[in-house]
Amino acid sequence: MKPMLRAALATAAVALSVPASAQFAKAEDAIKYRQSAFTVLAQHFGTLGAMANGKIAHDADQARADAEVVALAATLPWHAFGEGTDKGRETGARPEIWKEQDKFKQRAEDMQTAVLGKLVPAAKSGDLEQLKATFGPAAQSCKACHDDFRRRR
Amino acid sequence: MKPMLRAALATAAVALSVPASAQFAKAEDAIKYRQSAFTVLAQHFGTLGAMANGKIAHDADQARADAEVVALAATLPWHAFGEGTDKGRETGARPEIWKEQDKFKQRAEDMQTAVLGKLVPAAKSGDLEQLKATFGPAAQSCKACHDDFRRRR
Repeated sequence: MKPMLRAALATAAVALSVPASAQFAKAEDAIKYRQSAFTVLAQHFGTLGAMANGKIAHDADQARADAEVVALAATLPWHAFGEGTDKGRETGARPEIWKEQDKFKQRAEDMQTAVLGKLVPAAKSGDLEQLKATFGPAAQSCKACHDDFRRRR
Repeated sequence: MKPMLRAALATAAVALSVPASAQFAKAEDAIKYRQSAFTVLAQHFGTLGAMANGKIAHDADQARADAEVVALAATLPWHAFGEGTDKGRETGARPEIWKEQDKFKQRAEDMQTAVLGKLVPAAKSGDLEQLKATFGPAAQSCKACHDDFRRRR
């Protein structure tokens, strides 16, 4: 395993080991938290996408900084989808999340494989071609979950 | 400098090097982003506080995981306070942020010194006494900025 991939997955494992039960006193706190984690993730993911798609100039240092945030933020929202967090605050989460847990977890794993396993090390490599090659599949892994589990807005 | 402090500050330096100009197309995006970063930060900071104050059991692995998130999240909101981001979405940010930039930046630096320089390595050490000793000053560094620059709610 490449050192950067190992480091990314180690970071993910640490973050994912945080038990959800100790985290949220109320469902609304969990909902706000996961929305916030996705907002931070999307912002930095979007910057990587803009570089991959040539909308902004590729900047290797910027890409590395964004990849650092993406690597951590991609691991955070999942433990805030516990039972009973389907309501309590405005949310785009569809009830299918709690009815189709195996499928939802698979989508989350697919995303982390594409993002932590491929996009993040590519973005950190400083090589624009690697970033281009890995961004599309990562974005597709986001979309696959949104299509099934996020309300249309 | 201790290795963990060095690592924490290196992470901070990377994140802080992200240029704000490339980040936000609209003021409302910047506001939403910084609010989200603070929400993520507060959640994990709060868990460390609950351990430091004996409200939940000290769990060294959990504390390390929370410290990982705190270390990165503490560096994120600052580049989302650019000129023109005082409005565009509901915000608790007071106009003094942009009128007293030196003071605001000093508060942000004080917070990062207390959090990245002291709390994070203490939380990662696995030693509850270190966590207890560093949590109060870190919380005080948050409060000092909130008192001057955040609207009462």
